[in-house]
Amino acid sequence: MVMGGKGKSYCWLSLCLLGSTIVNIYFLSDLYIDGKGKVSWSEEGAAKAEEVASIYCSNHGRAYLDGVIGEDGKPVCECHTCYAGSDCSLLLPHCAADVDSGDPLFLEPFWMHHASSSAVLISGWHRMSYSFPGPTPISEVLDSHIRRIHHVAKNALTDGKYIVFGAGSTQLLNAAVYALSANLSSPASVVASAPFYPIYKSQTDFFQNENYAFKGEASLMSNASYANTNVIEFVTSPNNPDGNLKEAVCKGPNVRAIYDHAYFWPHFTAIPSPADEDVMIFTMSKLTGHAGSRFGWALVKDEEVYNNMMTYISVAEIGISRETQLRALQLMKAILRGDGKEIFDYAFEKMSDRWGKISRVFSKSKRFSIQEIPPLYCNFFDKVRGPSPGYAWVKCEREEDLNCTRVLGEANIIGRAGSRFSVADRHVRLSLLKGDDDFNLLLNRLETLVDEEGGPEAVSSF
Amino acid sequence: MVMGGKGKSYCWLSLCLLGSTIVNIYFLSDLYIDGKGKVSWSEEGAAKAEEVASIYCSNHGRAYLDGVIGEDGKPVCECHTCYAGSDCSLLLPHCAADVDSGDPLFLEPFWMHHASSSAVLISGWHRMSYSFPGPTPISEVLDSHIRRIHHVAKNALTDGKYIVFGAGSTQLLNAAVYALSANLSSPASVVASAPFYPIYKSQTDFFQNENYAFKGEASLMSNASYANTNVIEFVTSPNNPDGNLKEAVCKGPNVRAIYDHAYFWPHFTAIPSPADEDVMIFTMSKLTGHAGSRFGWALVKDEEVYNNMMTYISVAEIGISRETQLRALQLMKAILRGDGKEIFDYAFEKMSDRWGKISRVFSKSKRFSIQEIPPLYCNFFDKVRGPSPGYAWVKCEREEDLNCTRVLGEANIIGRAGSRFSVADRHVRLSLLKGDDDFNLLLNRLETLVDEEGGPEAVSSF
Repeated sequence: MVMGGKGKSYCWLSLCLLGSTIVNIYFLSDLYIDGKGKVSWSEEGAAKAEEVASIYCSNHGRAYLDGVIGEDGKPVCECHTCYAGSDCSLLLPHCAADVDSGDPLFLEPFWMHHASSSAVLISGWHRMSYSFPGPTPISEVLDSHIRRIHHVAKNALTDGKYIVFGAGSTQLLNAAVYALSANLSSPASVVASAPFYPIYKSQTDFFQNENYAFKGEASLMSNASYANTNVIEFVTSPNNPDGNLKEAVCKGPNVRAIYDHAYFWPHFTAIPSPADEDVMIFTMSKLTGHAGSRFGWALVKDEEVYNNMMTYISVAEIGISRETQLRALQLMKAILRGDGKEIFDYAFEKMSDRWGKISRVFSKSKRFSIQEIPPLYCNFFDKVRGPSPGYAWVKCEREEDLNCTRVLGEANIIGRAGSRFSVADRHVRLSLLKGDDDFNLLLNRLETLVDEEGGPEAVSSF
Repeated sequence: MVMGGKGKSYCWLSLCLLGSTIVNIYFLSDLYIDGKGKVSWSEEGAAKAEEVASIYCSNHGRAYLDGVIGEDGKPVCECHTCYAGSDCSLLLPHCAADVDSGDPLFLEPFWMHHASSSAVLISGWHRMSYSFPGPTPISEVLDSHIRRIHHVAKNALTDGKYIVFGAGSTQLLNAAVYALSANLSSPASVVASAPFYPIYKSQTDFFQNENYAFKGEASLMSNASYANTNVIEFVTSPNNPDGNLKEAVCKGPNVRAIYDHAYFWPHFTAIPSPADEDVMIFTMSKLTGHAGSRFGWALVKDEEVYNNMMTYISVAEIGISRETQLRALQLMKAILRGDGKEIFDYAFEKMSDRWGKISRVFSKSKRFSIQEIPPLYCNFFDKVRGPSPGYAWVKCEREEDLNCTRVLGEANIIGRAGSRFSVADRHVRLSLLKGDDDFNLLLNRLETLVDEEGGPEAVSSF
C-alpha cells in the first residue's frame, strides 16, 4: 500500500504530538500525589491559608491571605468597625453602629465551622481558557448544584428553565432589562413600586440607551397609560428594604417583570410556594453570605430572553470568572452535604433571633416603629413561621422627625435614608445582616436611644 | 464615681461582645494548625485538587475540579480539540485545526511547572464582604504587585497613576469609553484604525448611549472634521491582529486615546520604551495566560477619569470578584519569585519559536503571505530582538482568493476573517497562542497546504 499525502501528514503529526507528550510528562511528573496519599505540590498553598487563618484578631477582625503585610511579615488584622489595635482588641467607645450596607457577614461563623468542606484549592493551571466544554459557556456542574439547592430550599422551580450566571445579581438586573427591551416596537418604561432598591434606578439611568428608560413608580403607570407602552417592572420579593413579599403591580400583555429574589430564601422569609416566574434573579451574596464573590444567577423561561442575557454578559466581559464559579461550586457542595438543610436552619435561627431582639427594643418605643411582617406558612419548614427579615425598616413617628436618618445618626447609628428607596426620609433602613459585632453595637445603641425617649430623667430612674 | 448612662451601656456592650467572643472561639478552635505544622482543615481541599490533577488524560486534555463527573465518580477528561476518548488518547484524523480564538493556553505548561508557587487555597470565609479595608475598593496588595510586574517587564510607568480593576480588559474598554465621554459638550465619536479588534465596535454599539457612538475608521476623521468633534480613539499596541506597534492616528485637543496594551509584554513584542499614556489597559489573559479569570486593569493618569471608571465598575457589578483578585495575586507572586523574569523568557522563547516555524512554512509559499514585523530594540531584553506575535495575519495573494478564510477552511484550518477586523476577507487571523496540540495541528495543516500549492502532482513528486 502506498501512503498518500494525508497518511504521511498524519504520521508526521503523530510523531510531533508524541514529542509534545514527552515534554508534557516532564511537567506533569510534579503533579502526582506521593505514595503516602498526602498532599505534595498543594501543601504550600494550603499551609499559607492555615497560617493566615491562625492569626489572632481577638475575634473582632480577620486576617486574609491578600491582606496588607505587617512588620512581622504576616497579613495584618483587619478589624471590624469600632475595633482597633494590632489584634483588634481595642473597642472604640463612641464609635457609630454602621448598619448602612447589606453586607451579609452574619453567615461568616457558619463557614468557619465548615472550614474543611468549604475550602477549595485552585491550581495554577485551573481553567485558563475562555471557554467551557459543552453547550453553554458556564460550569455545567455548578448549574446542576444550583438547581439542587433550589430543590432543597423549595423556593423556585428550575425544571425547563435556563440559567444565566452574572457578576452578582447586580449585573443580571441590567442584563435582564436589556434582554426584555430588545426588539420591542417602542422603548420600554422601567418601573418599580416604592420603597425599592436604589440600584434599579441608578443602574438603568446609567446604562440607559434607546431601548429603555427608568420611569419611577410602578403604580403611576395607570392601566390606560401603559396599554400601549412596553413596561418592565422590577419586583423585589421579599422586598428590600421592608421584607414583605410582593407581586407585580403592572399587568397586561406589554408588561414584563423581573423578579429580584435575592432574599427569597428561608433565611429571610417564609416561602409560601416555589417561585415560577419568567425571569427570576438570585445571588450568592444572600444565600451563602459571599457578597465579595460577585456571583448571581438568573432562572429564565424563554429561550430568546436567555440568549439576549447571555449576549449581554458576553459583550460586557466574556463570561464570569472561573475562580468565582469554582468557589461557588465548593460552597454549594458544602451546603448540600447531608440533607442540605443546615444552612437554612442556621440562617433562619440567626435572623429570627436578631429580629426578636430588635422587635423587643422597638416595642418599648413610641418614637420609632418598624415594619410588621405577618407569620406565614413556609414551604421549606412545612409550618407557619415568624419573620426573619434582612433589614429593619424604621419609621420616625414624631411629626417633627422628618429626617429619621439624622435622628438615628445623632444616636450614633448609621442607617440608609428612605429617600434612597424613593420614599420619605421619615423612613430609614437598618441592616440586620452584618456580623455579630455590628449587630450587637446596633442593639446597644437602639436600647440607649429608646431608653432615653422620656428624656434624661427617665434614664436615670431606670 | 457614679456611672452614667454611657458608661453603663459601654459595660453592657462589653459583656455582650464577650459572649460573642466565646462563641467565636468555639468556631475558631477548628482553624489552628496542629502542633506538627502540617495542614488540617485545608487538607481535604488540597487533596481533592491533587487527585484531580493526577487524572491521566494522555496530555491531550485536562480534568478539572469542577468538571462533569464520570462513571468512576471522578471528573472526566476534557480533551483538546481533535482528541477524544475517555483518556483523550484518540486523535481524530480529519479534524480541523481551530485557531480562531486568542485562548492563551501556550502558558499552561509554565503553570504546571510552577504548581507549588501558583496554588492558592481559598477558605470558606475568605473576604465575604462587599468592601475592602483602605481607601479603595480593591486589593491594595494586588495593586502593588501589578506595579512591580510592570517594573520588571519595563513596559509601563506606573508612578503617579491610578489602577482600576475590571472583569478582563473587555469590561475596562467600555468603562474607559464611558469615563472619557462623560461631561463632554457633545457626543464623542469612537474610532480605531483598521485592522482592529472587533469588540471595540460591537461593545460600543451595544452599550451606545447619548454620550458616544462608534464611527469606524480613525483615519477618516480628517483634521477639519474632528476639530470640533470629541474623538475617542482605541489604539491597540501591539496590534491585534497584526502585531505591529501603533500610535494614535487622531491628534488634537479634543482627542482622547485608550491604549489597549493587552499584548504589550515581552512575550509578544519588543518594548521600545515603557508606555506612559493617559489611559492604558492590560489584561491577565495575555500576561499569565488566564483568560478564564476575567481580570484586567487600567493605568490611569487623571483622577476624574479614574473616578468615572470606578463608578462604571461599581454600577455594573459592585467591584471585581475576591476569588479572582486573590488568585491573580497568587499568580503575580509566583511570577515575581527570583528576579521575576522567568515568565517573560519562557513566553518569548515559546512565541518566538512558533513564529519561526510558521514563518518558515509561509516563506515557501507564493499563495499566502504573513505580516512583517521588523526586529527592534527591546527595553526588557536590553537588545534588538525578533518578532514573537500572538497571531499570524495571513493574506491570500492570488487574485481569485477573495475569501481567505474559506481557502484555509478548505484546508481544514479555522481562522478569523479579515472582515471581523474591518478589512477585506483576503486577510485572515490565525492564533498562535493556543496549546501545543492546536499549534502543532495548525503547523501540520499549513505544511500540507503549502506543499500542495503546485497542485497534487507537486505533492506526489515531493
